[in-house]
Amino acid sequence: MSSAAVKPGVAISRGLRGVIPPLCTPLSTAGDVDLDSLDRLIDHVLAAGVDGVFVLGSTGEGNGLTDGQRRQVVAGAVARVDGRVPVLAGVLEPSTARMVAIGTEFRDLGADGIVATAPYYFHANDRETDQHFRTIHERVGLPLIAYDIPVRVHAKLPLDVLLRLARDGVIAAVKDSSGDETLMRALVDVTADVDGFTVLTGSELLARHQMSFGVQGSVPGLGNVDPGGFVRLYQAAIRRNQQAAEREQARISELAALEGAAQQPSSQAAIAAFKAALVLLGVIDSATMTPPTAALAGAEIATVHARLTDAGLL
Amino acid sequence: MSSAAVKPGVAISRGLRGVIPPLCTPLSTAGDVDLDSLDRLIDHVLAAGVDGVFVLGSTGEGNGLTDGQRRQVVAGAVARVDGRVPVLAGVLEPSTARMVAIGTEFRDLGADGIVATAPYYFHANDRETDQHFRTIHERVGLPLIAYDIPVRVHAKLPLDVLLRLARDGVIAAVKDSSGDETLMRALVDVTADVDGFTVLTGSELLARHQMSFGVQGSVPGLGNVDPGGFVRLYQAAIRRNQQAAEREQARISELAALEGAAQQPSSQAAIAAFKAALVLLGVIDSATMTPPTAALAGAEIATVHARLTDAGLL
Amino acid sequence: MSSAAVKPGVAISRGLRGVIPPLCTPLSTAGDVDLDSLDRLIDHVLAAGVDGVFVLGSTGEGNGLTDGQRRQVVAGAVARVDGRVPVLAGVLEPSTARMVAIGTEFRDLGADGIVATAPYYFHANDRETDQHFRTIHERVGLPLIAYDIPVRVHAKLPLDVLLRLARDGVIAAVKDSSGDETLMRALVDVTADVDGFTVLTGSELLARHQMSFGVQGSVPGLGNVDPGGFVRLYQAAIRRNQQAAEREQARISELAALEGAAQQPSSQAAIAAFKAALVLLGVIDSATMTPPTAALAGAEIATVHARLTDAGLL
Amino acid sequence: MSSAAVKPGVAISRGLRGVIPPLCTPLSTAGDVDLDSLDRLIDHVLAAGVDGVFVLGSTGEGNGLTDGQRRQVVAGAVARVDGRVPVLAGVLEPSTARMVAIGTEFRDLGADGIVATAPYYFHANDRETDQHFRTIHERVGLPLIAYDIPVRVHAKLPLDVLLRLARDGVIAAVKDSSGDETLMRALVDVTADVDGFTVLTGSELLARHQMSFGVQGSVPGLGNVDPGGFVRLYQAAIRRNQQAAEREQARISELAALEGAAQQPSSQAAIAAFKAALVLLGVIDSATMTPPTAALAGAEIATVHARLTDAGLL
Repeated sequence: MSSAAVKPGVAISRGLRGVIPPLCTPLSTAGDVDLDSLDRLIDHVLAAGVDGVFVLGSTGEGNGLTDGQRRQVVAGAVARVDGRVPVLAGVLEPSTARMVAIGTEFRDLGADGIVATAPYYFHANDRETDQHFRTIHERVGLPLIAYDIPVRVHAKLPLDVLLRLARDGVIAAVKDSSGDETLMRALVDVTADVDGFTVLTGSELLARHQMSFGVQGSVPGLGNVDPGGFVRLYQAAIRRNQQAAEREQARISELAALEGAAQQPSSQAAIAAFKAALVLLGVIDSATMTPPTAALAGAEIATVHARLTDAGLL
Repeated sequence: MSSAAVKPGVAISRGLRGVIPPLCTPLSTAGDVDLDSLDRLIDHVLAAGVDGVFVLGSTGEGNGLTDGQRRQVVAGAVARVDGRVPVLAGVLEPSTARMVAIGTEFRDLGADGIVATAPYYFHANDRETDQHFRTIHERVGLPLIAYDIPVRVHAKLPLDVLLRLARDGVIAAVKDSSGDETLMRALVDVTADVDGFTVLTGSELLARHQMSFGVQGSVPGLGNVDPGGFVRLYQAAIRRNQQAAEREQARISELAALEGAAQQPSSQAAIAAFKAALVLLGVIDSATMTPPTAALAGAEIATVHARLTDAGLL
Repeated sequence: MSSAAVKPGVAISRGLRGVIPPLCTPLSTAGDVDLDSLDRLIDHVLAAGVDGVFVLGSTGEGNGLTDGQRRQVVAGAVARVDGRVPVLAGVLEPSTARMVAIGTEFRDLGADGIVATAPYYFHANDRETDQHFRTIHERVGLPLIAYDIPVRVHAKLPLDVLLRLARDGVIAAVKDSSGDETLMRALVDVTADVDGFTVLTGSELLARHQMSFGVQGSVPGLGNVDPGGFVRLYQAAIRRNQQAAEREQARISELAALEGAAQQPSSQAAIAAFKAALVLLGVIDSATMTPPTAALAGAEIATVHARLTDAGLL
Repeated sequence: MSSAAVKPGVAISRGLRGVIPPLCTPLSTAGDVDLDSLDRLIDHVLAAGVDGVFVLGSTGEGNGLTDGQRRQVVAGAVARVDGRVPVLAGVLEPSTARMVAIGTEFRDLGADGIVATAPYYFHANDRETDQHFRTIHERVGLPLIAYDIPVRVHAKLPLDVLLRLARDGVIAAVKDSSGDETLMRALVDVTADVDGFTVLTGSELLARHQMSFGVQGSVPGLGNVDPGGFVRLYQAAIRRNQQAAEREQARISELAALEGAAQQPSSQAAIAAFKAALVLLGVIDSATMTPPTAALAGAEIATVHARLTDAGLL
């Protein structure tokens, strides 16, 4: 029933690359999914020339939304994107069976690929991690991206498991948010001969550098706010225009300071800042967060405003 | 629509206490919920005189089952228990909104109370943790048990947050699986004057001891296998029959060795052993685990068999 | 030059077993080692019939004392014990070479064995951990006890490494403060045929139980305060007087509540409580801690006093 | 007795800034400190124009060397540097008293400042952390640099504690190896008005960027291998020659790949690679590591060679 067999097959079979922002999920002040704002956010990033969108990742509060809300987001994104770029959907469930269940729903709603972590309530050993990704891939049937984010999952995906999964065609890419550059380089190196397989980075500050050694794209939360910057960075990088790439990277790295606007520590502070910025930019209507996290307020919003102004975005 | 307003109100308003085993979820070899086996498991523990049952906890693989499977388990347990003891249901979701959603469903299916951890994908700060439990309590409306299990959630519930929630009537009990006895004692002490509030322990080896300083019950995974032992231990403890309590505790502690039967490390090894034991005891039909975890096999099952025999259960 | 070649060889070659309290290090209010108090503490535990003493462990603040202070402690303990039981000395250094250096000094001062963790500034991989213990053993030449304390070292000693070291005669015992009973049982089982090798527990609450499955002794911090209780527990356990063992364990477990007397969380709170108790018992002169930790005061001391009174020790 | 009162006062009172490489400690194949190689390493970095040297940090295996070896290193470095730049010395001890003891020795040997972490065997609470640095500062009397390296100490230095210590003149700088850029920015911001206080970064990949928001220097392990690169980077940054800074940063970031040359995971792998590189460059004689870590060999060295060649250093 989905059109997945046609368009995304084309897009993703060449290998996932480029800039694929993990979209924020706009919520109304009442906490409902705000599809109009989501449409505008999609327009905002597509107008900048991104190569895909990723809904329901960590930045998209995929962990914090109900099943119904998540279905709304996927359906809404698929409709608005309308085949122009791949739509990836995060299945931030704690275990295999639930990822299969929601992933199957997302496939039927038209998602082009799904993004899955290892199980994160019970820690999975290597054999279980391997089996986990194989089960998801077999049962959902969409291109599968392994999401390596130790700060949330409390374990790093092992290099040898990833290599085996890549060679066996189970995973199409890794989104590496591990911060371990030695292992990221090693992953790039050992998978270099796996046709169509790519490594994407979650790092905003090191994107340029990491593309210099074979990382093929980025999945930057800050790409909600400044998709154009990341697109220019990527374009300069692949054209080997080092100077332009570095200039753009420097601009982006400065802009990243807005992620520290929250005055109380919260592990969702950067997301709250992205949403505050998107409201200031007129892209979405409300900076409401999923419970129990509060939206930024007062002086915090002023800080975001100052950073956007400094970056020439306001 | 549920009968929850009647019976559990009675049972839980006196305060949760006694032995409340976290039931395993029997699965068929195909991985479906096996309701007949669940019925027999419930009969097995009720016949031993337990004071409640807790479905869909960590031991119940609540994290690993789909929504549909979880609804089956709650409905099946409510029907089989039929009001004789409270039925508690775990809402092992990564975030507030999802816990509210599934908790509401469990309430409507007749659960008498729900058991919730802090959010466990994003780490919640103290204010967020407080707000999390308040939101669940307000929206679901059932007695709420806070589940403190740092080995899974990667953070301990703060003592001052728990005290405030207890005093405000937000939480009815804490299930403490933290292993930090100093803080468990402190929690017992500071909540001593909160009417009807209780602290339950997840420790099998220290249950007798912890009841000596005010812990009012236990939630032992091993209680699936030997509910009678835990009931005798509890009865001896409340009657201050120290000698009988210690004898029973010693027996139980020996039996706990079966939790180490797995030959490969797995964080679900103890659960796999409980299921293997329940098959050997003729209570359930299959020791199948939720993916990606394998059931015990061969020599591992022989180890479980030996331990059951040593304990006089076979 | 030391008498180590004679007496401890005798004592330890039979295998380390029984009650070996990790002695507190008494300090004057000025922070100097108080050798008179140390003498009285040694008399206190020897009078109770302990099987050895362990100076400069975690409880002995071995990590917190200077080299000079540590030499004083070892020399003082060796002199006072005078060959009646083995004197073990902790080498709580972050790395191999330093453990060799200080361990050699301790040997020359007459220590009968040394107790070493894995390196704990840099994390050692399995090969490095193996090499670490071999190097210490070869260079120091005393019986070597591996100290498994993940809460301090941030890694657990791997079972297969320990087994290899035991079989090769590198380590004479493991002091297991890991809290992982499944792996402790496994260690007892796999080393059962290694002549003279023993597993000792750091757990105060589970000592009786763990001796039931082959643990051969305990190294209890609380044994500073109540050495007699631990000796009675051990004696009852080896005579298989289950009832007496359980009664003593229950008493000890109650007494352990004094470890929670501190009103501010501190990872050295239990040690501060032991010292406060030893002052109240008239064994040592001052409860001074190594910097930057404060001694207990006021209401905290009153709590310790109440616990000692409840236990019949005051 | 030391000349410390004269020269370093001058150098450090202006505030620590610029490039201060954490020097490797050259060892002979027998494991002794190789002072000739250390002299050549110092010449190598001074010739490149560094602003200070830091001996006995993590990169200098300060944790792995004996007291005698460490005294040799400090004395050797002080003699060779001969007042041209400040000599900082790490006191990588697990606790306050030992840091005071060895820090005092280093002061008397002529060190110009000392670098201290929080205690790292026992975890220190905030009050203890504050007291720890105050005690060291009072007792040693040299400029004190707080070293924030959670990957080794297993805790981050709290922002409010650092601010208080900076304002009270207890610490002269923070070496931030935490990887938490939001908190690093916050530290720079809140200490901006503390005269002479600086924040230095341990990051090699983000040095340019972090200097753009107020970080005043870097302490790069890779600066052993390519001190000139880091000096050019720093000079370009302070002259606001953005393009030159970015070009140099890009070169350095590529060179950092040599840190992944080890084929087995080891937490000291980067240090082993620096030493291998220094041998290939003819600066030091042997790549021997402190036990129990092995030097790189064979193909690993070939990888380092290739990286040096790519970077134009060979």
